[in-house]
Amino acid sequence: MKQLNIGLFGFGVVGEGIYQVLSQKPQLKSNIRKIVIKHPDKKRNAPSELFSVNMDDILEDDKIDVVIELIDDADAAFEIAKKALQKGKDVVSANKKMIAQHHVELIDLQRENNVSFLYEAAVCGSVPILRNLEEYYDNDLLNYVRGIVNGSTNYILTKMRSGTETYDVALKAAQENGFAESDPTLDVEGIDASYKLSIITLHAFGRLISSKDVLRKGITSLKPDDFQYAAEKGYIIKLIANSTISEDGRLIPTVLPTFVDKRETLALVNNEYNGVLIGSALADEQFLYGKGAGRFPTSSAVLSDISALRYNYKYELRKGFVNGFDGNLPVIRKFYIGFNTGTPFDSSIFTSIDELYRSREHEYITGEIELNKLRDSGILTDKNLSIIAFT
Amino acid sequence: MKQLNIGLFGFGVVGEGIYQVLSQKPQLKSNIRKIVIKHPDKKRNAPSELFSVNMDDILEDDKIDVVIELIDDADAAFEIAKKALQKGKDVVSANKKMIAQHHVELIDLQRENNVSFLYEAAVCGSVPILRNLEEYYDNDLLNYVRGIVNGSTNYILTKMRSGTETYDVALKAAQENGFAESDPTLDVEGIDASYKLSIITLHAFGRLISSKDVLRKGITSLKPDDFQYAAEKGYIIKLIANSTISEDGRLIPTVLPTFVDKRETLALVNNEYNGVLIGSALADEQFLYGKGAGRFPTSSAVLSDISALRYNYKYELRKGFVNGFDGNLPVIRKFYIGFNTGTPFDSSIFTSIDELYRSREHEYITGEIELNKLRDSGILTDKNLSIIAFT
Repeated sequence: MKQLNIGLFGFGVVGEGIYQVLSQKPQLKSNIRKIVIKHPDKKRNAPSELFSVNMDDILEDDKIDVVIELIDDADAAFEIAKKALQKGKDVVSANKKMIAQHHVELIDLQRENNVSFLYEAAVCGSVPILRNLEEYYDNDLLNYVRGIVNGSTNYILTKMRSGTETYDVALKAAQENGFAESDPTLDVEGIDASYKLSIITLHAFGRLISSKDVLRKGITSLKPDDFQYAAEKGYIIKLIANSTISEDGRLIPTVLPTFVDKRETLALVNNEYNGVLIGSALADEQFLYGKGAGRFPTSSAVLSDISALRYNYKYELRKGFVNGFDGNLPVIRKFYIGFNTGTPFDSSIFTSIDELYRSREHEYITGEIELNKLRDSGILTDKNLSIIAFT
Repeated sequence: MKQLNIGLFGFGVVGEGIYQVLSQKPQLKSNIRKIVIKHPDKKRNAPSELFSVNMDDILEDDKIDVVIELIDDADAAFEIAKKALQKGKDVVSANKKMIAQHHVELIDLQRENNVSFLYEAAVCGSVPILRNLEEYYDNDLLNYVRGIVNGSTNYILTKMRSGTETYDVALKAAQENGFAESDPTLDVEGIDASYKLSIITLHAFGRLISSKDVLRKGITSLKPDDFQYAAEKGYIIKLIANSTISEDGRLIPTVLPTFVDKRETLALVNNEYNGVLIGSALADEQFLYGKGAGRFPTSSAVLSDISALRYNYKYELRKGFVNGFDGNLPVIRKFYIGFNTGTPFDSSIFTSIDELYRSREHEYITGEIELNKLRDSGILTDKNLSIIAFT
């Protein structure tokens, strides 16, 4: 077993957890030589000689062969990852934004420099989705990957499920319990889920998309009325990230609030958990489930990546690497659009209408909408509309 | 990518499926050179020159570097696997009985001959449990692996769930729908689950146990009354295979009908599906779910193993390999024991009793029992008793 000499960027809860596990387990043969941090004055639970504020203390140290990058800033993280790969160091990262934005460049750097770049922790924490897509489904034809990939929004939606709590109250509960950031925008607008979906899509289908290609709606407009509708019909509302191959071979990437039948697999994913369904020609449907974020799940995923480096594991992306999206979504899906009675709304977006409902306070329409039309209409950003897909 | 030359033993539904996928997908670079079968007169959907009844046509052919073994007979399968490994060929098998009975010998043969022996299809079909235990959880401390690993019994239990169907009727439905063998003994007595649990236990904990070490009770004694009790209390009865590390570091391997709270993860595993929970120190609880058996799921797992051979993948068993069981189960668990009123039963096996119930037809007792005592009493083989563990 190869000895690893590690340089660590970031010493937050995950970084400290990694440091503790590796220093308590000599059998892992992984030695942290240097930890680069931003704030030298904070008290740290590790010997002070390990710390530095100079990133070159890691990047220019030829004895360090592995860089673990656990910082928040996606731009700084990219500079670190890029330089480290160029210097011939393996890199482990948990920064989904950085990876989603620079996926091709990072994979090229990995290839050119014959090193490994691993990032299981960036997608669904401890749920080994990427490793399974890479290794296990590499010759089975996948039809879809869809699931709950963001713990903050799933926690909020679980709180709102009863139809009695508003979004604001549920968000506050999530923040108080450490399941949402003080600025929750990336999570609640579905942006974080789009980053993850673009990473998943490349590993699942060999198709390259930008997170901006994802047809996206967050959860901020959802109202108790929507949850009451769901409950009456036997549904649960989940924020579902979904890359599906349509009948004509087209990739349809979406992040949308979605009605999930309460007897379906994804309905069991509650609170801060994540769960992903993988649909394939041979294996039918597989489900991977676990904690998607937080100190221990993220540490677990990072440690698995470190362990994989010891036998020179690389993502091979055997399914190839083609531009996965031409911007065309000529697919019709069923939607629910709900709003306060009197809100201006042009129902001509619906190709066909199944239900119209209006009470003194609340209105909704269900029916079919073409996804191109949904995107181009601009209503996805209308804060007054609840837009929920049917499965 | 390495070209694989394959010799296939067995041409049942899985063998034929593998043949079809590999011959239709030249990009998999896997060529089936010979197929050894038992009955030469059966009509086969493949060119007749591929078939032989002489196993040496594969084992003695130096051009064949991979043997896929898909036959039922565990003894014959072992002879094939052994000779193939000795001849320096990689082996893929789906035969859990053969593997459970010869695990050490087969792994030693793999090491001595520096070849790969892979068997993901032997445990939970397309659910990649072994690969994940090997690769992903190799440095996270596992506390338990427990789940539903037998599709036949799970199908029967799902049918019986309502408390209106008897075991015999449910078994017949399973057989008619292709989910149970005409001789279902291995499945319904929990023997198949014990084979799988012993394989899982080695990969999860690095502890070697025989399937006979597993404290085991099947589902044949379960009665509608037991399911009515379960429904009243909010439980579902599942046959749970469970290897748990007790507080003093002892391995406790059991296959038992178990009351699962209907809101728990495993309660969602219905019909012929399998689902396994992996509990670990860092990653908390992970759940893997999918189809456990059948043509396509098994083919999918075999194909994944074939694919892994192309980059020389081996199970490394990094957690080691120690004798995992001293026969002592000094652990107390809560049980339900039910029987027809008047059946002789000595309740002194209970360390403490929580409930006693008797109607004109049905009796049950719930309370705590030491596992050593449960095993040594012999009541596990008493066909008149429903013995169900609480989680």
